[in-house]
Amino acid sequence: MQEPTVTSVSDLSPSDARWIALKKIDFIDQTGTARTWETATRKTTSKAGVDAVAIGNVLLHPSKPPSTMLVIQYRPPIGKYTVEWPAGLIDENESAQQAAVREMKEETGYEGHIDQIGPPVASDPGMSDSTIQLVMMTVQLNDHEDLPEQRLDDGELIQRVVVPLTDLYSRLLEWSRQDNFMVAAKLFHFAAGMHFATTTKLV
Amino acid sequence: MQEPTVTSVSDLSPSDARWIALKKIDFIDQTGTARTWETATRKTTSKAGVDAVAIGNVLLHPSKPPSTMLVIQYRPPIGKYTVEWPAGLIDENESAQQAAVREMKEETGYEGHIDQIGPPVASDPGMSDSTIQLVMMTVQLNDHEDLPEQRLDDGELIQRVVVPLTDLYSRLLEWSRQDNFMVAAKLFHFAAGMHFATTTKLV
Repeated sequence: MQEPTVTSVSDLSPSDARWIALKKIDFIDQTGTARTWETATRKTTSKAGVDAVAIGNVLLHPSKPPSTMLVIQYRPPIGKYTVEWPAGLIDENESAQQAAVREMKEETGYEGHIDQIGPPVASDPGMSDSTIQLVMMTVQLNDHEDLPEQRLDDGELIQRVVVPLTDLYSRLLEWSRQDNFMVAAKLFHFAAGMHFATTTKLV
Repeated sequence: MQEPTVTSVSDLSPSDARWIALKKIDFIDQTGTARTWETATRKTTSKAGVDAVAIGNVLLHPSKPPSTMLVIQYRPPIGKYTVEWPAGLIDENESAQQAAVREMKEETGYEGHIDQIGPPVASDPGMSDSTIQLVMMTVQLNDHEDLPEQRLDDGELIQRVVVPLTDLYSRLLEWSRQDNFMVAAKLFHFAAGMHFATTTKLV
C-alpha cells in the first residue's frame, strides 16, 4: 500500500464525462425577471429521483457504549482521506431502503435494522441538484463478534473505524486537524447537532 | 410576486460556464493502480481555500424559547424552495468569520456573536471539491425588537422563518412533506443529530 497521489487535473469536456454534467438553467424568478443559473448534475440519478443514501448507523454491543462505524477513503476531488458515514448511490430501480442495506453490507459487512428513513435533502443546493436520504440503522452485536468482511467493488478501498457516539464530535474535530483528512459535511453537521443538543439549554 | 418557473435546462459548454467547471482527475490509488475521477468544482474558491460558510444561529430572547432563523429561497438546481441556514460563498481575501458576519447581516439583518468556527468539511465529496465551514453564532434579542432589514444582493429573494430549536427537526420534516420545498442536507443532519441526542440513550 502506498499514499494515493493526484497526477493531473485537466478540463473535462462534456462529451467525455460519464458521471456528471454541467447544465444552464433558464428560469423566471418571483418578480417575473428572466435569470440563469449554472448547476452540476449526476447522470446516474435513480428512478426514485434521489441520488444517494447515507447510513447513520448505531452499533449496540452488550458491554460497550453505543458506537457508530465510520468509513475512511481517499476522495480524489478533495485530494484527502474523507471521514464519512457509509453511503452510496442508489441504483436504477432500487429504493432508498434497499440501497442503504446493500451499501451498509458492502462497506462495513454489517446487516442492521432500519429505524428511520429521512426525506430527500439537497447536498449542495447552490451548486448542484444532488440529493441524499439519511437512513438511520441499528446493528445489534454479540459479545464475541469478529469484524465481518466487507464486499467492496473493484477499486474501492475503504477503512472502517468504530467510534463511541459520545466521542463522535471530538473525534471528528481531531481528524479535521490532520492535514490529510477531511470530514464530510453531513456527518459533521449530525455530530455538531448532537454536541449542541447535549451542551446547550434548549428550553 | 409569482411562482418561479424553470423555462429551460440546456447543456452548458465549459467555455460559457462562469461559476462552475468539470475536471478530470488522474490519480494513483493505494495499490499503485492508475485511476480517473470526475469532479465538479467552483471557479470562485476563496484564497483561504474554502468555498462557503453556513451560520448555525441561535436567537436568544428574554421571554421566548431559544430559536433559530432559517432562510427559504428558490433554488433553480432543485426547482424548489430550499430551507437552509443563512449561508454564502466566502469572498476573495475574506476569512470564514468575516463571511459569516457579512452573510448573516445580509440575509437576516442580524448581528451576532461567533461562538465556534467549524473546520472545513466536504459538502459532497464523491461529486465535487466543494467545502464549507459551519459557524455557530448567538444573537441576543431585546423584548420589543422589530425584525431588522435584510441587505440582499440584486436578485436575491430570501424569506426568513424563526423556529424554536426544540421544534427544528419536526418542522424540517413538515417542510419535506410539501412538494415545493426541500430541506438542505447539512441543516437536516444538524437537526437529526439534535433529535438523536435528545431521544437516544448514549451511555
